Amino acid sequence: MRRWEMDGFGRDRLELQQVPVPQPGPGEVLVKMAAVSLNYRDQLIIADGMGAPLDFPFTPASDLAGTVTALGTGARRFAPGERVISTFFPGWIDGLPEGDSAHPPYQSLGGAYPGVLADYVALPEDWLVRAPDTLALDEASTLSCAGLTAWFGLVERGGLKAGDTVLVEGTGGVALAGLAIARAQGARTIVVSGSAAKLERARALGAAIGIDRTQGDWVQAVRAATGGRGADHILALAGGATLGRAVEVAAIGGRIAQIGIIEGFEASLPLGPLMLKQITLNGIGVGHRRALEDLVRAVDISGIKPVIDAHYSLAALPAALDHLDRGAFGKIVMTPD
Amino acid sequence: MRRWEMDGFGRDRLELQQVPVPQPGPGEVLVKMAAVSLNYRDQLIIADGMGAPLDFPFTPASDLAGTVTALGTGARRFAPGERVISTFFPGWIDGLPEGDSAHPPYQSLGGAYPGVLADYVALPEDWLVRAPDTLALDEASTLSCAGLTAWFGLVERGGLKAGDTVLVEGTGGVALAGLAIARAQGARTIVVSGSAAKLERARALGAAIGIDRTQGDWVQAVRAATGGRGADHILALAGGATLGRAVEVAAIGGRIAQIGIIEGFEASLPLGPLMLKQITLNGIGVGHRRALEDLVRAVDISGIKPVIDAHYSLAALPAALDHLDRGAFGKIVMTPD
Amino acid sequence: MRRWEMDGFGRDRLELQQVPVPQPGPGEVLVKMAAVSLNYRDQLIIADGMGAPLDFPFTPASDLAGTVTALGTGARRFAPGERVISTFFPGWIDGLPEGDSAHPPYQSLGGAYPGVLADYVALPEDWLVRAPDTLALDEASTLSCAGLTAWFGLVERGGLKAGDTVLVEGTGGVALAGLAIARAQGARTIVVSGSAAKLERARALGAAIGIDRTQGDWVQAVRAATGGRGADHILALAGGATLGRAVEVAAIGGRIAQIGIIEGFEASLPLGPLMLKQITLNGIGVGHRRALEDLVRAVDISGIKPVIDAHYSLAALPAALDHLDRGAFGKIVMTPD
Amino acid sequence: MRRWEMDGFGRDRLELQQVPVPQPGPGEVLVKMAAVSLNYRDQLIIADGMGAPLDFPFTPASDLAGTVTALGTGARRFAPGERVISTFFPGWIDGLPEGDSAHPPYQSLGGAYPGVLADYVALPEDWLVRAPDTLALDEASTLSCAGLTAWFGLVERGGLKAGDTVLVEGTGGVALAGLAIARAQGARTIVVSGSAAKLERARALGAAIGIDRTQGDWVQAVRAATGGRGADHILALAGGATLGRAVEVAAIGGRIAQIGIIEGFEASLPLGPLMLKQITLNGIGVGHRRALEDLVRAVDISGIKPVIDAHYSLAALPAALDHLDRGAFGKIVMTPD
Repeated sequence: MRRWEMDGFGRDRLELQQVPVPQPGPGEVLVKMAAVSLNYRDQLIIADGMGAPLDFPFTPASDLAGTVTALGTGARRFAPGERVISTFFPGWIDGLPEGDSAHPPYQSLGGAYPGVLADYVALPEDWLVRAPDTLALDEASTLSCAGLTAWFGLVERGGLKAGDTVLVEGTGGVALAGLAIARAQGARTIVVSGSAAKLERARALGAAIGIDRTQGDWVQAVRAATGGRGADHILALAGGATLGRAVEVAAIGGRIAQIGIIEGFEASLPLGPLMLKQITLNGIGVGHRRALEDLVRAVDISGIKPVIDAHYSLAALPAALDHLDRGAFGKIVMTPD
Repeated sequence: MRRWEMDGFGRDRLELQQVPVPQPGPGEVLVKMAAVSLNYRDQLIIADGMGAPLDFPFTPASDLAGTVTALGTGARRFAPGERVISTFFPGWIDGLPEGDSAHPPYQSLGGAYPGVLADYVALPEDWLVRAPDTLALDEASTLSCAGLTAWFGLVERGGLKAGDTVLVEGTGGVALAGLAIARAQGARTIVVSGSAAKLERARALGAAIGIDRTQGDWVQAVRAATGGRGADHILALAGGATLGRAVEVAAIGGRIAQIGIIEGFEASLPLGPLMLKQITLNGIGVGHRRALEDLVRAVDISGIKPVIDAHYSLAALPAALDHLDRGAFGKIVMTPD
Repeated sequence: MRRWEMDGFGRDRLELQQVPVPQPGPGEVLVKMAAVSLNYRDQLIIADGMGAPLDFPFTPASDLAGTVTALGTGARRFAPGERVISTFFPGWIDGLPEGDSAHPPYQSLGGAYPGVLADYVALPEDWLVRAPDTLALDEASTLSCAGLTAWFGLVERGGLKAGDTVLVEGTGGVALAGLAIARAQGARTIVVSGSAAKLERARALGAAIGIDRTQGDWVQAVRAATGGRGADHILALAGGATLGRAVEVAAIGGRIAQIGIIEGFEASLPLGPLMLKQITLNGIGVGHRRALEDLVRAVDISGIKPVIDAHYSLAALPAALDHLDRGAFGKIVMTPD
Repeated sequence: MRRWEMDGFGRDRLELQQVPVPQPGPGEVLVKMAAVSLNYRDQLIIADGMGAPLDFPFTPASDLAGTVTALGTGARRFAPGERVISTFFPGWIDGLPEGDSAHPPYQSLGGAYPGVLADYVALPEDWLVRAPDTLALDEASTLSCAGLTAWFGLVERGGLKAGDTVLVEGTGGVALAGLAIARAQGARTIVVSGSAAKLERARALGAAIGIDRTQGDWVQAVRAATGGRGADHILALAGGATLGRAVEVAAIGGRIAQIGIIEGFEASLPLGPLMLKQITLNGIGVGHRRALEDLVRAVDISGIKPVIDAHYSLAALPAALDHLDRGAFGKIVMTPD
């Protein structure tokens, strides 16, 4: 079978190797890969490990969908033939992750643990969740990170309800997952983007309002479009100074889910409106397995559909990473062929 | 009777005037002032209205404690002789305040409404709350703003529980109120200050841990003092770049109540630990009447005691404001004589 | 203008009187009635006041929709021509209602306060809420009690999310409102009824699963239909011994909203499953104005549609009450003609 | 070493056996027993398994405190010499327990799993929690079930805050744990008991109010003692018809933690006050490991002290069970000698 491996940092160190199919150990299952969804952070990991050491040879990527083909001894959660997806942070089942003030948890697949860009992957059964019945496996692979992150910010932490207004920054994988989740829960949706073409595509997906941030002050535009109310929930995907705009555009009692850092890991924001508008800012780091199981149920019952911008075959990883560099409308998914 | 009035911005425009005792209108009560507690923001209002217009002649200050001496027609919530305190934001009873995204609510006494630095004040009865039985009125006057702000951050929004670790920045009125509330609910308390003398006084009030921020890295010091866990709740009173230190010192799942802006209205903070530690940042703007009533009950049952640094007579307002400039250990309270 | 009045308990004491159009007092608005929705409890009030005294002559009914035609002095929340609906419990704005352990609050329109079965009604402006833009006024009138009760149980107290399973008992006004709200938030819906014909109509409205409680053990049927999971949320509309069945049918962590008392005011329930399944039982008594405003927003954004079984002209109240006796599929609404 | 074993249902089938010290398996630790706390349900299990099958020979009891003396391979959470306590429901770490509507989770030590009445017990390390530093091990053993149950009802599910009024039914282990927790969080405490002598002892432990339920209507007595407000939190330990009294005595917005079933597994309660007072009834079944860790921290920081009525040596189990039959004031604890 094939597996992408790198023996040092940098995209040019990636090699598609031929390796034996792994044997599932005690409590593990063997998964035949059907799809692997890529994330922006995979690029950062490949570049320099995001500042953390990696065990070389290292395999990138975290979001796997596939079919169980063999069980290790004692494995009992899944049967051969079942369709499964991976959890981003193995071991985070519910509540809060482990760790302390100086050592935040960040033990993810394709990071502290080996990744999933391979024809077969053996994983502890507790690291997997049943895939939704109503999605193909390429779609299902997008739930592990992008889908769960949007769900965690809007629903698990945000308590989204029908009639709320949800604003998403951009049209990447988390943004469009948030758009679909917000619509499924009866919310009004606003997409802010710098591309008129992408806004057009977002409207076609059901976004109620599209705001072009290159055309004047988008904070004022959102306020005008909501009769002054502002946004009840904001998926903050830009980070940096844009987090301050999220504070400005929020409604009284608004909730901001801080997720992305495209404009920088250091944010600035105005404290006056944060305090007077009683805003809650939640730091979101993907989410736990129980919420992923909730999301799978929501997908099957409410018809949430992930958006895939492009598929690439496993061998075409360099082209897929180039696409990721250019920015995707939704998700980029790798498949075996 | 006497009342402080200003006919323009600036401390030198304050005059202690002789005016008639006001008559309570329909639904109002007349309160004989026993104490007025000063806040840092009173200085900002006197200086320039915090950027908002004021109706001149204007009377500053928001936090009144006194005794009801007369009732307007239809007033029924209080009887003559009852001891009462004022609410900071009249009309905010419960839930969220009114307003919209561009116009955060900030309709306070001693701001959009006339203030209370006078021998008698007539107020709508709904703007008042019964004073706690176990406090003298000078102590009770500190609950309206400083006490309620700390309570709102720790309890109403923070869900404080026994065994949590609470960190307060500084030793001002909100910080020491937070210290008392945290102790009353069985929490461990940490005070961070730049003054060894103030830390000594804080320890005498029951602070479990005092950290001198002028002696090395206080984030590391707090982590060391908590076995690496960090602080579960932080009363962020500095604002500016110090909000970023609050993010660093927080525990997994930590809650930061953003309250103060001594170091600036624009904050900067690191998004990595905010996201990975699943931190919640709540913007706090004092609080509503129902929470003030909860606090009054908590004071009477659990023995919470406000800390008063100094008393000044009503006529000595300039000296009191000078004291506020120098920084107080707890609250500064004006009394009639 | 016309107004229904009774000078003593009992349906035969109701008379349609000719009275002058009322003048709105200070802070009041005059509303031209377009629709009045009837509730089961209106029958109880007419019969004996539900054990409480009434001021005779008394006008029944609480749920008004209409158009503002005149303003009293000081009224500023609505303009002439605006479409409004009434709040069931005037004065309950947010948070908890007033009252104490022995004297639960129950100060409703058409109860402690005069009701709305009249061509024109003058009410304090704070007792009204803007009607949704997307509903006709006959539909809008059903929100004040039935709609808000379902919303309060499922969303305000229940935290409903997409993918949850919602079970409603019966096909009355609250049940069908709950069905619509659950569907709007992406939940799976189950209706339990004793009538195959009503189940057929409920399925036509989008109920995913209909269970005929006259055909065997409905608790087992629901468990089977949910793969053993049970119901995450239950709108308990029967009361009496049926509340115990709600406990049995609930999922782990399930939430029961206790609303109805058709089978009796005294309930019995098994404590073993209540404790082991970590069930939360919330007593629901309609809800507050802020939640009604949330519901209005949800209606406009998510397309929630109330179900009206029949319309009656104002003069046809006796026939409408007879219909209520027989049991309605959704709501019964009175209109002027 | 010694271990109590039964080869069939009934107290007369209990035998103190001599058996080899167990070897800790992979991921297990060996604990030298210092104390085992008994619970009312241990009697029910011994009598008939509470209707569930047991694996004979069976060892009763769930609440162990002791010292780690050996580690199995791979065990890493504890070091030899560390003081630990057991979790009541192994595997319930956070959030909700596993199970479904028809099969509530009830996989406890001394039930579905073997119990701990032995000189040494080998357990998976994940089933243990560090004991608090400030308690002796006999006191610490009472936290696993009684302490955690009270904590879960009041704090984890109840959101207890300073100034609330907490009512506990009786003076058993959970009731007195609740009393201590409520006092540590600044609440006012009410104990209702049928014994004047036990009320005297409860007052000596700090109960603010003691109500003798044999002297007239205790609901009225509690209302009178709280100025009409009633109780904000009730630990409902009686079950049966007494749950209805809890509903009557509750405050507006009151929270009832349903815990005990001494008067029967079938409860009856009045729905009128449940609905109008907006009461929340939470079914409590002990709690999860994360909350037990929270409780351990609360014990160390706030000085919560369990109440032990009597100690018995391991060999004196029959006498201890007789004491349990008579009813204990707090907990009964077994020690090696």
